[in-house]
Amino acid sequence: MAMSNSKNQQILLQNRPVGEPKDTDFALVETPIPEPGAGEVLNRTIYLSLDPYMRGVMNAGESYAAPVELGSVMVGGTVSQVITSNHPQFSEGDFVTGYGGWQAYGVAKGESLRKLDPQIVPISYALGVAGMPGMTAYFALLDIGQPKAGETIVISAASGAVGAVAGQIAKIKGCRVVGIAGSEKKCDFVVKELGFDACINRKTEELSAALKASCPQGIDVYYDNTAGPILETVLQQINLGARIPLVGLISQYNAESLPPGPNLMPLLVKRALIKGMLVTDYLPRQAEFFNDVSQWLHLGKLKYKEDVVEGLENAPRAFRGLLQGENFGKLIVKVGEDPTR
Amino acid sequence: MAMSNSKNQQILLQNRPVGEPKDTDFALVETPIPEPGAGEVLNRTIYLSLDPYMRGVMNAGESYAAPVELGSVMVGGTVSQVITSNHPQFSEGDFVTGYGGWQAYGVAKGESLRKLDPQIVPISYALGVAGMPGMTAYFALLDIGQPKAGETIVISAASGAVGAVAGQIAKIKGCRVVGIAGSEKKCDFVVKELGFDACINRKTEELSAALKASCPQGIDVYYDNTAGPILETVLQQINLGARIPLVGLISQYNAESLPPGPNLMPLLVKRALIKGMLVTDYLPRQAEFFNDVSQWLHLGKLKYKEDVVEGLENAPRAFRGLLQGENFGKLIVKVGEDPTR
Repeated sequence: MAMSNSKNQQILLQNRPVGEPKDTDFALVETPIPEPGAGEVLNRTIYLSLDPYMRGVMNAGESYAAPVELGSVMVGGTVSQVITSNHPQFSEGDFVTGYGGWQAYGVAKGESLRKLDPQIVPISYALGVAGMPGMTAYFALLDIGQPKAGETIVISAASGAVGAVAGQIAKIKGCRVVGIAGSEKKCDFVVKELGFDACINRKTEELSAALKASCPQGIDVYYDNTAGPILETVLQQINLGARIPLVGLISQYNAESLPPGPNLMPLLVKRALIKGMLVTDYLPRQAEFFNDVSQWLHLGKLKYKEDVVEGLENAPRAFRGLLQGENFGKLIVKVGEDPTR
Repeated sequence: MAMSNSKNQQILLQNRPVGEPKDTDFALVETPIPEPGAGEVLNRTIYLSLDPYMRGVMNAGESYAAPVELGSVMVGGTVSQVITSNHPQFSEGDFVTGYGGWQAYGVAKGESLRKLDPQIVPISYALGVAGMPGMTAYFALLDIGQPKAGETIVISAASGAVGAVAGQIAKIKGCRVVGIAGSEKKCDFVVKELGFDACINRKTEELSAALKASCPQGIDVYYDNTAGPILETVLQQINLGARIPLVGLISQYNAESLPPGPNLMPLLVKRALIKGMLVTDYLPRQAEFFNDVSQWLHLGKLKYKEDVVEGLENAPRAFRGLLQGENFGKLIVKVGEDPTR
């Protein structure tokens, strides 16, 4: 579908998906471009972030964000350009990040937006390494994982938006870092581009044996983006006092009922901990994150790969692929023109 | 079997049990009373402690203690009286606690024994409230659970050696305390004698509904002695930032393979933690525990119930009952005469 200058395009949540979201769970509609009210800003979406948590908000029940109402625009983080501003802090042409959702134009309260400076890092990075996924990686690893130099860190979904950042930070902290990813190409990237010490292809390698081979000193921190069978296997090889930040449960987001989890005996034997983490709890500390990450990016210590899908209409299909691990790098949808590139 | 004055009685681990231990997995044998060597002490066993961890050491694989060799005396904590001492710190007639095992007489290195003063607390308490179970309750609750006044604490196996102490300490700290136990009699005891605010009979009540009714503010700390379905149900009702010390997995000690555990989604949603705990890690801090607990006992703030089985030959049967929750109070076996009572 071509973009129109006079109409808004929106993707609405039409049905609550059962299992994997289908095309018919969404509706692509054309609506009038909205008018901003007092204190509000009209934005043109440039990039839409697709993240696993979105599967949870498609359900009626409690997840870690409020459910999206049926018939409403799907929620999502966005990078946008200001078209009209009724808020003193924003002017036409500014680049901003916020939660614009799955649509080409959106109106937002000024307070919900953060201005982006394209001179510091590319604007799209606000949806990844310099945004929520990066901050998730940073605080879950450092605050819960507490990696010490010389320790061994295992990271699932290692080439993804969060895993790639977590692994590189663990390398910066002097750890041995072993990734788990879903293809040879991803493993190559994780080792050769990101500098992980090893990466296990979970599609072709027997995980337990591969972990033993790549973690000869055992596992001190498991940065868990997936839960499910990977967590179960990792638990068998944790060291005394291991720390497991539980950051995502990608393996079960499409599940129609919650599958059983891992047997917890190893936690007792090894006096280890599993702790759930939500990035929003760390918003008061975001300056620490921004300072470190922008410095690491400029020094080349932190590399970042995006997987850009063109066109809002492709968001549902791309999101399905995300839950299957088909993306390679941080998945974003290019919704409109990016004048900075 | 009657006690002989000239022979030792020992219970050996004869076979590695498959599932629930059978009588034929043990052998009761008569052997000569051993002679203590240099630095050693010959003790007459008065009380033998039976604890769930013993099921783990009957297996060949790693648990949180070393496996018992087939044909060897079963390990176990004991309270004994010194018969002959070749160690300067102990004299004939002293009462001591150590790991004498399932036998009527044992030789131990002096360094492995701790002298007991019958004037402070009854000597058998060294196997319960004033010993490892009490110390487990104390540090798992306070160090991992970190209960704050006004919070709601749920405790499984609430009338047991560990749960009863944990719940009373939580009451001392100003918490609402809800127990889970396996009979009406145990629930009555927990509420009326120990002062818990409520107790759920897991045999007759629907746990989820009963927890909702007795924990209207949700659950802040779950002191987990059992794992299994109780943990799964509790997880559905935890509050933001809940803490779950994982102290035992009684529900699965007889399992022939590790059953699945709970789905961990609630940990993520509630940013909660599960942390394994082993009391031996806290030995350097045991003075804190002894001071508090002996004071609380003297002030009547801490009550303690023992379930005493007479005769070493009944230890295997009593141990089987322990894993089924048939004991009522701390289970100990009276192996020989207690001259202090």
